[in-house]
Amino acid sequence: MKVPRKLLSFLKEKDNFFIATHINPEGDAIGSAVALSMALESQGKKTVVYDRDIVPEFCRFLPGHERFKNSTLDFQPSAFNLILLDCNSLERAGIEGLSFKYSAVIDHHEPAPLCGARPGTEENFGDIRWVEPEAAATGMMIFYLIKEIGIKITRDIAINLYSAIAVDTGTFRYNNTTAEVLMVGAELIAAGASPAYISNHLYETWSKERFALLIMALNSIEIRDEIAMTVVTTRMYKKTGTGPEDTENFSNFPRIMKDIKISAFFREIGNNYWKVSLRSRGDVNVATVAALFKGGGHRNASGYKIKASLESAKESLIKAVKSEHRKFCHKP
Amino acid sequence: MKVPRKLLSFLKEKDNFFIATHINPEGDAIGSAVALSMALESQGKKTVVYDRDIVPEFCRFLPGHERFKNSTLDFQPSAFNLILLDCNSLERAGIEGLSFKYSAVIDHHEPAPLCGARPGTEENFGDIRWVEPEAAATGMMIFYLIKEIGIKITRDIAINLYSAIAVDTGTFRYNNTTAEVLMVGAELIAAGASPAYISNHLYETWSKERFALLIMALNSIEIRDEIAMTVVTTRMYKKTGTGPEDTENFSNFPRIMKDIKISAFFREIGNNYWKVSLRSRGDVNVATVAALFKGGGHRNASGYKIKASLESAKESLIKAVKSEHRKFCHKP
Repeated sequence: MKVPRKLLSFLKEKDNFFIATHINPEGDAIGSAVALSMALESQGKKTVVYDRDIVPEFCRFLPGHERFKNSTLDFQPSAFNLILLDCNSLERAGIEGLSFKYSAVIDHHEPAPLCGARPGTEENFGDIRWVEPEAAATGMMIFYLIKEIGIKITRDIAINLYSAIAVDTGTFRYNNTTAEVLMVGAELIAAGASPAYISNHLYETWSKERFALLIMALNSIEIRDEIAMTVVTTRMYKKTGTGPEDTENFSNFPRIMKDIKISAFFREIGNNYWKVSLRSRGDVNVATVAALFKGGGHRNASGYKIKASLESAKESLIKAVKSEHRKFCHKP
Repeated sequence: MKVPRKLLSFLKEKDNFFIATHINPEGDAIGSAVALSMALESQGKKTVVYDRDIVPEFCRFLPGHERFKNSTLDFQPSAFNLILLDCNSLERAGIEGLSFKYSAVIDHHEPAPLCGARPGTEENFGDIRWVEPEAAATGMMIFYLIKEIGIKITRDIAINLYSAIAVDTGTFRYNNTTAEVLMVGAELIAAGASPAYISNHLYETWSKERFALLIMALNSIEIRDEIAMTVVTTRMYKKTGTGPEDTENFSNFPRIMKDIKISAFFREIGNNYWKVSLRSRGDVNVATVAALFKGGGHRNASGYKIKASLESAKESLIKAVKSEHRKFCHKP
């Protein structure tokens, strides 16, 4: 991976940076942002790390996560240089309308709007754009960037980058896991990241209440046309003492069944109002299905919102999956 | 890791090998055995690959798994040189009483009997013993062995070794995952192993019936004294159309709860007769707990059988956990 020369000059010449990541941040966004902040500050630069939303519980073991600010009130954006991480539009970071001195984008998401993406998506935001859809994680890009500048990878930086890469590769299980990813992982372990410590924190820190909610969700399972549908209602939150943030990852469990094409997880967000998360494997494209409902995402992980009764929300999903390739993208 | 010179000479000088692994084989045993068989045969040697038990379903995607024979009737053991893989006694391979020309052991399990192990465990079997408790998997040892001999790692060998290592490290999540493990993984990917293909086959090929059984097991959960206890009865098999082999890995699910010390999975194997699988994290030693019931295993994964009603089996486990360190090993 080649770090653009222009980006290196930008980081060298400027003195203060506003590092922003996408709303609803996960491990790759948070780990990459904190690692970059630590690296730049080790060079005497000033950084502010921002996300509109708070750091989710499962990422709070990351050293330096408390750098995140969730408000732009305390500073003057126009005095800063923006580095947008793990997303490529101001809208995705929830900071549309703000203006900065100069801006750089570092992201591994496909820059062009996906088939059916919302209109108005900014495609070409940023004075410098470093977008590598082939990179398994933004954390991989930050790793190469830090190495290229010649900054030492401390233990704290290593933990953040390892976690970023682990989250976006399903801890080396998804098809973005390459030999290069494992080589970088090995280097980060050598620099002080502990795979077991990180995995325990990413995957084994559920509360009993959250586990009880999972069991309820699994009990709701209904399989139709190779789509496994599970549900969490607000009543279930009350019964178990949990909340929406506890449903993170629920959509992945039914994927272990070999005859399931899509796992669809329906989360109640209002009266007859549902957030639907779709997960698939391999060639089954759920980004185009979500697009039919004005949602978005990747080929194997997407989502949308729908106002309907649960039963008709399910029905419309089943119909949409059937019609998807006929009505939408003609690309494979 | 240093491959013993004596072992290299043995493999070079002898012409036929009987490669045997432990009863109830899993990915490390099977992948290592098949990879070694392929490597030796590429050198013009004759090999027989043996396990007393059949290759479990989740390993049948491994190229060459059909090399396994489950009977010793077709050949004369005394005409062969034995290579015992992923275990270090004839008893563990279910071939006690057989005798071979010459024998070598390649294993990463602790050779000394664990505190409370069954009496009569052979500690020093083998003319050549290469035992590396520090190795994450026997697959790691076979990787170095093949490289040392100078045999090309083909795609099929790479898939077998990658799977062996993946299984024994929880796909790079357990605390035996080192920088070296990831470096070897990277080399195996470069040689043709696909992480996503392998992970899908290892973790995402459940039947709907098996998933239904898991939900039933999770519904049985009872948490007492930080021990999460789940149960599968023969009635549940009937209801879901499943069998004991479908419960593989069930014991791991409750481990995602942070306040659980031990996950105990009770599987009915007869009238008032239970197979209990224990799983723990970090310093919580379940090998010594299983030993109290004449069972065995590792620090974080062990098991035993008990004749009792379900309720008293649970009670006796809770008592045993409490008394474990007082009554047994004084080592930390």
